[in-house]
Amino acid sequence: MKVIVDAMGGDNAPGAIIEGCVLGLKDHPDMHITLTGSEEVIRAELAGYDHDASRINVVNTTEVIDMAEPAVEAIRKKKDSSMVVGLNLLKQGEGSVFITAGSTGAAISGATLIVRRLKNVKRPALAPMLPTRTGRALLIDCGANAEVRASFLAQFALMGSIYMEKVEGIKNPRVGLVNNGTEAEKGTDLTKQAYKLIEKMPVNFCGNAEGRDIVSGEFDVIVTDGFTGNVILKHTEGLAGTLMHMLKKELKSSLRTKIGAALAMPAFKNFKKSMDYTEYGGALLLGVNGGVVKAHGSSNAKAIRSTLRQAAEFIGGDVVGMIKKEISRISLDD
Amino acid sequence: MKVIVDAMGGDNAPGAIIEGCVLGLKDHPDMHITLTGSEEVIRAELAGYDHDASRINVVNTTEVIDMAEPAVEAIRKKKDSSMVVGLNLLKQGEGSVFITAGSTGAAISGATLIVRRLKNVKRPALAPMLPTRTGRALLIDCGANAEVRASFLAQFALMGSIYMEKVEGIKNPRVGLVNNGTEAEKGTDLTKQAYKLIEKMPVNFCGNAEGRDIVSGEFDVIVTDGFTGNVILKHTEGLAGTLMHMLKKELKSSLRTKIGAALAMPAFKNFKKSMDYTEYGGALLLGVNGGVVKAHGSSNAKAIRSTLRQAAEFIGGDVVGMIKKEISRISLDD
Repeated sequence: MKVIVDAMGGDNAPGAIIEGCVLGLKDHPDMHITLTGSEEVIRAELAGYDHDASRINVVNTTEVIDMAEPAVEAIRKKKDSSMVVGLNLLKQGEGSVFITAGSTGAAISGATLIVRRLKNVKRPALAPMLPTRTGRALLIDCGANAEVRASFLAQFALMGSIYMEKVEGIKNPRVGLVNNGTEAEKGTDLTKQAYKLIEKMPVNFCGNAEGRDIVSGEFDVIVTDGFTGNVILKHTEGLAGTLMHMLKKELKSSLRTKIGAALAMPAFKNFKKSMDYTEYGGALLLGVNGGVVKAHGSSNAKAIRSTLRQAAEFIGGDVVGMIKKEISRISLDD
Repeated sequence: MKVIVDAMGGDNAPGAIIEGCVLGLKDHPDMHITLTGSEEVIRAELAGYDHDASRINVVNTTEVIDMAEPAVEAIRKKKDSSMVVGLNLLKQGEGSVFITAGSTGAAISGATLIVRRLKNVKRPALAPMLPTRTGRALLIDCGANAEVRASFLAQFALMGSIYMEKVEGIKNPRVGLVNNGTEAEKGTDLTKQAYKLIEKMPVNFCGNAEGRDIVSGEFDVIVTDGFTGNVILKHTEGLAGTLMHMLKKELKSSLRTKIGAALAMPAFKNFKKSMDYTEYGGALLLGVNGGVVKAHGSSNAKAIRSTLRQAAEFIGGDVVGMIKKEISRISLDD
């Protein structure tokens, strides 16, 4: 299987990206990686690792898209950036998945402009994993579409279900629609209409998910618009950070609690691990004609390694082929 | 000051409600409470407590609105319910604040139908407190208006600011608009338009609040529509519960971590206290012609006591008068 990786995107590029790729190649003996970026820099980094050079290809690029650049403009202007060249390689079939830890906006715009939507997909959606009480749930969309129609949400439910089944191995994933109440008639015009459409989709729709159900473990696929999803995703990160900050402060408040915290350290470490995004892989942009994975901007080598594992499952499960096939079966007009 | 309390609303009514009122009367020597509900039941409960009977008044009612009843219908039909009678007493000036731990929907509908909006207020909004890294923030709206116009959000910013200044004693409260990015041009048509309107309001507008900023302590007033606010509020509760569940599981995993957790117990208790809604009081419905407080459905006596403290501040700060005065100064048309 062939994967393309943007060597220049993210806070820790290119070092962590390249280290992660070397680890990934060891995990997956049938994987081949094409790195896009400054060949000189990449070769110098690679020289530091024991690796099978025949399984790594470098495509030299001369530009990098910054996190802060306006996305569409950056994609249009920086034709020789590691992101644009990588997406073009994906389009040309030089790999099945493109991974970047660079700008989320540029990755979404670039995927839409270069790789293109799959036929009959109304809008691609960005889908990260959230930790839940019992495992993980896929949040779809978390920011590709701030404003949506009900039919988009219905398609998100289908694409998210296919992903959870094929990549995470969840049989018959339980789909929930984010709403401000559990009853079918609750919510905005949008959610009421989406409820009816999702009921008709070939997914295991389990009804509305209130805020309190998002990480309860009752749902495997959490469907929402990109505005609400973005708020949920970032609030999850922010609240987890705030709670840990508050708890740490209390634990440091006396000698007794300090000793207690030191003894309990293995538990805190395991807890932290279960919350650790570097174990989860990146967020998939579902609905485009290829695999596009947005890894966390602060990805370290371990996170890139997890993302490569995710890419391998994505390719093995033929998620793109499945979406293409299933999405055409149901015509949605609104 | 005179407060009206629904003795029959909430999971722990009437016992916890009445116990909380007895405690509140001791905290506030100038407070008088009117309880609505079954006089027989209330008198029997009151008999168990040492209290100044001259400062408690009981208005007998024969009906109770259930949590699950359709709100508007319940308000219209159950004329002799503890909720409807309490709201009518508020309207008639028999008290300045009405507190209920009963159905949120019924409290909102009842307040709007019976107590009525203040002149020039476009929509009342429900505003609970969230714990933050450094203190508390007011979330407005959390569910009274699933669909809003930009002008509603601008008024929420003003009403929330007045509340935080008068009740919580925060000078020049920092207002943030929930959005999927920090830049002014980010978001939906609604948030872009609201951004421009809030800039014109007499509030300390500090720009967009991304999900990660909601509990960071950077904002005192978090402005959003009732749909997003409801998801944020319930996700906050759900995520905090899930994280604590995961941490507890890890702490129980070995003898060492169990001993550590036992030693660290005072820290966990203090942490829990800082997250404890019973310390915070209830959610205010701002924008109606009187104080309407929705206490948590599972309120215990301590929560009711906190809510009475909040009511006293609300009355002392003349929040209703301030909103009435300030809201008329800026005309918003959209």
